Amino acid sequence: MDLKSEISKRADVFNDALNTFLARNHPNNLYDAARHLPLAGGKRLRPVLSMLCCEAVSGSHIDVLPFAIGVELVHNFSLVHDDIMDKSNMRRNLPTVHLEYGEPTAIIAGDLLFAKAFESLESYPNDLKGFRKLYNLLIRSVIEVCEGQQFDMNFETRLIISEKEYLDMIQMKTAALFRISSEGGALAGAAEPSVQDQFARYGNCLGLAFQIHDDYLDMSSTAETLGKDIGNDIRNGKKTLIAVHALVNAEGSHRKVLKDIFGKATATEDEIQQVHQVFKDIGSIDYAKQKAVTYSNMAIESIGDQENLEPTSTTILKELASYAITREK
Amino acid sequence: MDLKSEISKRADVFNDALNTFLARNHPNNLYDAARHLPLAGGKRLRPVLSMLCCEAVSGSHIDVLPFAIGVELVHNFSLVHDDIMDKSNMRRNLPTVHLEYGEPTAIIAGDLLFAKAFESLESYPNDLKGFRKLYNLLIRSVIEVCEGQQFDMNFETRLIISEKEYLDMIQMKTAALFRISSEGGALAGAAEPSVQDQFARYGNCLGLAFQIHDDYLDMSSTAETLGKDIGNDIRNGKKTLIAVHALVNAEGSHRKVLKDIFGKATATEDEIQQVHQVFKDIGSIDYAKQKAVTYSNMAIESIGDQENLEPTSTTILKELASYAITREK
Repeated sequence: MDLKSEISKRADVFNDALNTFLARNHPNNLYDAARHLPLAGGKRLRPVLSMLCCEAVSGSHIDVLPFAIGVELVHNFSLVHDDIMDKSNMRRNLPTVHLEYGEPTAIIAGDLLFAKAFESLESYPNDLKGFRKLYNLLIRSVIEVCEGQQFDMNFETRLIISEKEYLDMIQMKTAALFRISSEGGALAGAAEPSVQDQFARYGNCLGLAFQIHDDYLDMSSTAETLGKDIGNDIRNGKKTLIAVHALVNAEGSHRKVLKDIFGKATATEDEIQQVHQVFKDIGSIDYAKQKAVTYSNMAIESIGDQENLEPTSTTILKELASYAITREK
Repeated sequence: MDLKSEISKRADVFNDALNTFLARNHPNNLYDAARHLPLAGGKRLRPVLSMLCCEAVSGSHIDVLPFAIGVELVHNFSLVHDDIMDKSNMRRNLPTVHLEYGEPTAIIAGDLLFAKAFESLESYPNDLKGFRKLYNLLIRSVIEVCEGQQFDMNFETRLIISEKEYLDMIQMKTAALFRISSEGGALAGAAEPSVQDQFARYGNCLGLAFQIHDDYLDMSSTAETLGKDIGNDIRNGKKTLIAVHALVNAEGSHRKVLKDIFGKATATEDEIQQVHQVFKDIGSIDYAKQKAVTYSNMAIESIGDQENLEPTSTTILKELASYAITREK
């Protein structure tokens, strides 16, 4: 089984549905701005996750598409607004929406994508009980994404963040959408509540594994790229799991390096290297890598013992959890 | 019957429900930012409208509160984001959210209010059919508000806007929320679909009357205030019904004044006065006043012949339509 082709096969089905749903409309410039990011591609991990979990409980993945579009559009709306807040210039190899269409239109385009996410859910088949639960999952996830984003911003101005605070934050900001993608997929496939819960756990752990492995990948880049991406994170005092671990555990001279340089907007390349060396010396980079492995294993265990699951999609879900922590970008 | 006390009586009930619903939570700064505008008061026209329409069809206005909170929060979320786009400093005699909490937090606070609007709807009583219709009304209205806001911005860079384009725009940007407030109130009161439609028409015409009378009030201020509010609208080329009428109908020297000055960022006070004089001479100010009267009458006619309506709330609704075009601020 080739994981990438299994994912892209489903992503193609999803992309067709999304293209049809997110039709151009008036005013054109607003719809062009709203379509800019969601139609620019991306791996479609969240909607494919919904489709796979629906298949795993022997449902038809077509049923979950209205919800899967909802999740993907919530994800995209939050990226459009995040890019404005972070003043980012590029996303998915394209100029960000606010750079291309101006900030006012980008704000409205994000709002429109949010509304469209919930409009998509309206075409969910007539099982009304399922509808209200999916609606609840989607609304709760948006609230969590907003709260998580604000915690993330608040953390930048504090030196010490506990690991629990960090994990709670990425659970809201990142893992929530993975969790509801999986849970919603199982629900749309008419799984029992206990099975829905298991998929919710799977998705949550998968999301945590993805995010923490991202932190790890960013910090384990080669020296040449250190000056750019990692440099900015260190200069901004960005609280990744690695930074959180180091700031809690550093002592003596290590502690002094972090205190003096971490979060210093004007840090030189040499200073960035010093911080990076502290992260390595304390074992913070290895710690994060190991933590991602733990969550990946927990994800696999969440669905591991189910005999009644459809084998192909279940295998793909397990491989996806392995991919989360072995990928190199 | 005293209209203001009838409205404020219901606004008090609504405010209690809103206060309870919009509880403070973590992260505190995000919730403080989100609560800043909705808990700063305001006339609560939209939720009171929902309550009155529910009463008019002999429903209990308590039933419509989850939806009414939804409508009010959609209104507030759009104001928070609009204020960022317009770089406004004050709203309801308070600093705007972005001025008080910074732009990033204001963007998320708006998003959170949007999500909270739909979270509120979840506590709507178990009549599932009604739930999906209310959900549909709320989602459609957000999409209309977004589209209307973008049209409004696009109009600023065009000289000639037709009256139809203008009316379509305020229908989306302003009247949509009045319309769904009324329609949703009748629906929650278990009115027949044809009666729901009548209330939808009432709310739509009421919203148009309110907006056009606002345009009229702004332009009929005394000379002393002209330099400030009207001056800015004229300098920005803001397309009110008055401006739209004048730009379409002006000829000769009138046309030249508008062409030279309307939308000119550096227009002097004397030039502002010239434009204002053209508006008067062509009859554009009277035209707008009359148009608002027409919509107010249409609103009253929409519910006028119903014998089965509860008389007290129906009288209030009619008086509200008269108030929309007789108020002086």
